[in-house]
Amino acid sequence: MPLPLALTMGEPAGIGGEIALKAWLGRGRGVPAFYLIDDPDRLASLAAALGWPVPVRQIATPAEAPSVFGEALPVAPIGAALRGRAGHPDPADAAAIVGAIDAAVADVRNGRAAALVTNPIHKDSLYRAGFPHPGHTEYLAALAGADSTPVMMLACPELRVVPVTIHLALRRAAESLTTAAIVTAGRVTAAALRRDFAVAAPVLAVAGLNPHAGEAGSLGREEIEIIAPAIAELRASGIDARGPLAADTMFHAEARRSYDAALCMYHDQALIPIKTIDFDGGVNVTLGLPFVRTSPDHGTAFAIAGQGVARAGSLIAALRLAAEMAAKRQIPG
Amino acid sequence: MPLPLALTMGEPAGIGGEIALKAWLGRGRGVPAFYLIDDPDRLASLAAALGWPVPVRQIATPAEAPSVFGEALPVAPIGAALRGRAGHPDPADAAAIVGAIDAAVADVRNGRAAALVTNPIHKDSLYRAGFPHPGHTEYLAALAGADSTPVMMLACPELRVVPVTIHLALRRAAESLTTAAIVTAGRVTAAALRRDFAVAAPVLAVAGLNPHAGEAGSLGREEIEIIAPAIAELRASGIDARGPLAADTMFHAEARRSYDAALCMYHDQALIPIKTIDFDGGVNVTLGLPFVRTSPDHGTAFAIAGQGVARAGSLIAALRLAAEMAAKRQIPG
Repeated sequence: MPLPLALTMGEPAGIGGEIALKAWLGRGRGVPAFYLIDDPDRLASLAAALGWPVPVRQIATPAEAPSVFGEALPVAPIGAALRGRAGHPDPADAAAIVGAIDAAVADVRNGRAAALVTNPIHKDSLYRAGFPHPGHTEYLAALAGADSTPVMMLACPELRVVPVTIHLALRRAAESLTTAAIVTAGRVTAAALRRDFAVAAPVLAVAGLNPHAGEAGSLGREEIEIIAPAIAELRASGIDARGPLAADTMFHAEARRSYDAALCMYHDQALIPIKTIDFDGGVNVTLGLPFVRTSPDHGTAFAIAGQGVARAGSLIAALRLAAEMAAKRQIPG
Repeated sequence: MPLPLALTMGEPAGIGGEIALKAWLGRGRGVPAFYLIDDPDRLASLAAALGWPVPVRQIATPAEAPSVFGEALPVAPIGAALRGRAGHPDPADAAAIVGAIDAAVADVRNGRAAALVTNPIHKDSLYRAGFPHPGHTEYLAALAGADSTPVMMLACPELRVVPVTIHLALRRAAESLTTAAIVTAGRVTAAALRRDFAVAAPVLAVAGLNPHAGEAGSLGREEIEIIAPAIAELRASGIDARGPLAADTMFHAEARRSYDAALCMYHDQALIPIKTIDFDGGVNVTLGLPFVRTSPDHGTAFAIAGQGVARAGSLIAALRLAAEMAAKRQIPG
């Protein structure tokens, strides 16, 4: 039996609990075995409140999860009572939220879980409790130590995109783009495509920054001065990087078949196409860590938390992709 | 019988001729009657070279076109021999290319044609011949005179987008965005949706510039300082403008159903979603002119001109949309 996936609690005032319950209800339809690191009592109460038939079973070790999973939702207890209520986070929960991440990472690194899947956190609550990391991914990189270069990928069955710059104002993204950042993203992406996606010779499509990829300099010089040198450097290291390509003609169905991942220069250049194509099924994948980590591509959704209406499609896709990637990573080469 | 559409020759070294022949071959499948302003002999030769059964018939006035259209491609002669050959434009053709546009505009303005559909031109050839206008649309606006405020829309059956800034490097687009430009684009778009698309109460979705629409200022101030004031001004004038919205979550199928057109802040924010959704069927529509004008959303495609492989989907969509818009514009109110 394959190792189970470790799913973190995330922010308990958000939708993490209910989408985990929904994902478990989908277990007969190809959702791989996972266990949740959370408070079993709150999950049982949540299932009862929503009227969902989800038996919750506390487990002592992840090894119990696969056999439990068919009949009940396996939960490794966090050992703390939670204060946050649906839509109302409480900074007092910060230690438990971070503890769930720590426990999940320890399970994955010690070979007790196949991969890490994280529910959304609410950074403000953690900051107020003194959390010193900018975000989830940076914290995972800190836990992973020296051998990590985290790179964010968004993936759906039809498209994989990697934004080279992420949460920056558009002007700052354009100003701060560097050849080195593109090369790093390209190298980590190509390595991950080989190792975790079983793509023997990955093709990277590299977007331009400007309209029509700058039209030979008349609509901007970044393609010539920053992006083309990065592509040359990637190609010199044996990676089949192509571009700079006009971003508007890169993402239709026929174009997508010509590459394995698109390197995008800014947030919306990556996020617009993937969310246009597959709004509910996109998965956030952190490449460049010493373990497989995926997460749903949405936030805590406080506005609808506790109502049972949140869609579990992205979490289910994140669980499936994590299982697939972990299975591939076990195969050497 | 409704008035025919006037289709310009465009750059004769490009794919305009062959896609016009293909569009005529689709006449039994809902392609509305049009006539081409071009050289009849070159079209007959092109059809013969490609082995396509397209009889070419010279017409003396547009009024003949609808009855001719069932049996032959109606062509209003430009009265000049052309020098350009497939893939090889010749500046000596500039007068004929511009003359075809002039003739088509005159036909539409004088009530002889229902609307104007333009084949792609090659600006460099026209510039070398002394053409003083930045592009096709600016020339049409100059012909139209004082009562025109041209605004570019890209339309497909599932989405309409209006880029507020167009052919600017991304940094320049961000720097040059103004409240006035957004308001003008919004007003012209709302008026056109009412008049030419029969949308009684248009809803405009206004995109933010920055990731997550700036996240209340933490990822950029343009939403607060430039875009929100434009939305307020549009709303004060009775236009249902909404936003600023996070651009990445505006374009999936469910989101698209909530508005009639999206106002986008830069080229790729508008072009990425529409070309991702419908690469071949997008139509370029010029709003704010005193007549209906559409064009295919591609260029002259010199690399494949003359081979018969160019796809006519966008031209056919442009012809259909022009006919629909013209039919709606004739209905007062």
